[in-house]
Amino acid sequence: MALALSLGRRGQGNTAPNPAVGCVIVSGGRIVGRGWTQPGGRPHAEVVALKQAGDAARGATVYVTLEPCAHHGQTPPCAQALIDAGVGRVVVAVADADGRVDGRGLAMLRDAGIAVDEGLMANKAFADMAGFFRRIVTGRPEVTLKLASSFDGRIATGTGESQWITGPEARRMGHSMRLRHDAVMVGGGTARHDDPSLTVRDMGVTRQPARVVVSRRLDLSMLGNLARTAREVPVILCHGKDADKDLQKAWEELGAVLLPCQVAGGQLDTHDVLAQLGAHGLNRVYCEGGSALAASLLANDLVDRLVGFTAGLTIGAEGLPGVGALGLGALSEAPRFDLVETRAVGPDVMHIWERAEG
Amino acid sequence: MALALSLGRRGQGNTAPNPAVGCVIVSGGRIVGRGWTQPGGRPHAEVVALKQAGDAARGATVYVTLEPCAHHGQTPPCAQALIDAGVGRVVVAVADADGRVDGRGLAMLRDAGIAVDEGLMANKAFADMAGFFRRIVTGRPEVTLKLASSFDGRIATGTGESQWITGPEARRMGHSMRLRHDAVMVGGGTARHDDPSLTVRDMGVTRQPARVVVSRRLDLSMLGNLARTAREVPVILCHGKDADKDLQKAWEELGAVLLPCQVAGGQLDTHDVLAQLGAHGLNRVYCEGGSALAASLLANDLVDRLVGFTAGLTIGAEGLPGVGALGLGALSEAPRFDLVETRAVGPDVMHIWERAEG
Repeated sequence: MALALSLGRRGQGNTAPNPAVGCVIVSGGRIVGRGWTQPGGRPHAEVVALKQAGDAARGATVYVTLEPCAHHGQTPPCAQALIDAGVGRVVVAVADADGRVDGRGLAMLRDAGIAVDEGLMANKAFADMAGFFRRIVTGRPEVTLKLASSFDGRIATGTGESQWITGPEARRMGHSMRLRHDAVMVGGGTARHDDPSLTVRDMGVTRQPARVVVSRRLDLSMLGNLARTAREVPVILCHGKDADKDLQKAWEELGAVLLPCQVAGGQLDTHDVLAQLGAHGLNRVYCEGGSALAASLLANDLVDRLVGFTAGLTIGAEGLPGVGALGLGALSEAPRFDLVETRAVGPDVMHIWERAEG
Repeated sequence: MALALSLGRRGQGNTAPNPAVGCVIVSGGRIVGRGWTQPGGRPHAEVVALKQAGDAARGATVYVTLEPCAHHGQTPPCAQALIDAGVGRVVVAVADADGRVDGRGLAMLRDAGIAVDEGLMANKAFADMAGFFRRIVTGRPEVTLKLASSFDGRIATGTGESQWITGPEARRMGHSMRLRHDAVMVGGGTARHDDPSLTVRDMGVTRQPARVVVSRRLDLSMLGNLARTAREVPVILCHGKDADKDLQKAWEELGAVLLPCQVAGGQLDTHDVLAQLGAHGLNRVYCEGGSALAASLLANDLVDRLVGFTAGLTIGAEGLPGVGALGLGALSEAPRFDLVETRAVGPDVMHIWERAEG
């Protein structure tokens, strides 16, 4: 199952709206098939592994990180494929919370006389596919918020200079994190100021995560990097329903996907922004700021994971803060996160935190 | 020599104005004497080790982290004590930069026919006694600046609430760091707002580092923790030469040491503050803020080491920054530090940095 989990992680950021599943088929003590969910979410991991195993699947034990599907979607149900292949036993890490599966995959297997075990390494599997489960259950994707800042928590000088606070190793790590998400997200101010391309560079990748810009008024440059490349790598614009119609049309013509979102208190409602992104099929979103978007996500308790890169320099109080105003009344109201990992990355410190429970 | 260095470190924070030296005497493959500089700087490490060794010192090899002294200070010269004990060989990590020694200790030993080796583990010895060397060479103590902040670099909420951002383990680590310095230093604003005692608690210590407050006008509470305990643990007040004379007198009567310092641009000149502290015999100063003092030290390139404790919570842009305005023109002007260590301390991340060379 550990191998199946590690195979599954290969698909992270590539399988939305489907979860990144891994599958290993073992027969007579030998691995006869390995598979993981393919780019775009199809074929499923089980189908890939069964194809590799061929006749060796007969009577074999199948380790799969998620309950095999039971419904005819864009592929026939995997539970049926396992039955047809004549496998002897199926070991599943976690059941599928998707209403179309929800135990029916396991029931199909058992009805066909196949031994089924459930729950092996379930915690690890749940964590790996947390974005998928979160979207299925709550309707919104899992959100990672990244901040690259100075020792004193500034993401740019007072004049807006931010290249480069952290070193090339941290930037490279940041790119590899982009790759494991379905989309990279920034606020409109960051898009205007930095003109980022938000793509993964220098890593030999063939598929890029989508780019999401949260901009109420769509007042973004139509000559910038995002506009120029919208036909090559998806650009998703979350805008206010009140945004200028001509601008909406122009961006659509450039190839962008437009998601109209609700406005609350003069700003885009980030609850609705994430609901729209979830409905669009995104499981895992990687937010890179700016400070207003970060503050809105944090204030609405929509951040699941914090990734900090801290550099050994000080910028001082005139510098740009990484997180805007949160409107806290007391320290006890501050959003809290538990440390998952910290280590040096090149000359900088990386620290990763996950939302504290309760 | 590694053992001598670790013995020497036992004295850190306890030996000012003297450096914290360690000494090991080896005879016939056995350790016959161990010593380190005692509290207050006397007796010296060599004297302690020689006393322990007794007659076994005759013909023995002496490992000592710093060149033995050659001058009659408050103790007779250690070089003479080594000669009188009849040791066979002396191995020294680093020579003493103090003008009263400066090679004369080694010369005395050689003149007496004792074999002398120099430079074993010199880098480590220099680092351990950097505060002493810095004071001897530049006149100012080594400065460690500590910041305990939220993920987004805030040391308190907008209303000044700062207890507790970091957890008990980080606070305990902070106290153990205080203990290894000669003095703990804060700005006047922090002293007024937090009414700190700045002592080391719950660690069973018998000797406390001095407390330094940097306050131009001496407008500090005379009923607070520092005033109340000034006779038990030294309180050193760095104030402007223009501070109210009655206040100066009142603080002296409370038992505080007053160090008048120059004023530059309406603020105390931190160059002169540190020069005064160096002249007062402090080798190692541990600064705990606030943001104005931190900014002045950083802007004047007076910080040798940064210690950060980062907690997993976000406070937002209304929160208090850890470092005040630095007046940087460009990112390339930002003071830079090299990472020395990072690790989890309880629920928080500790990261330690030292001034980047060149």
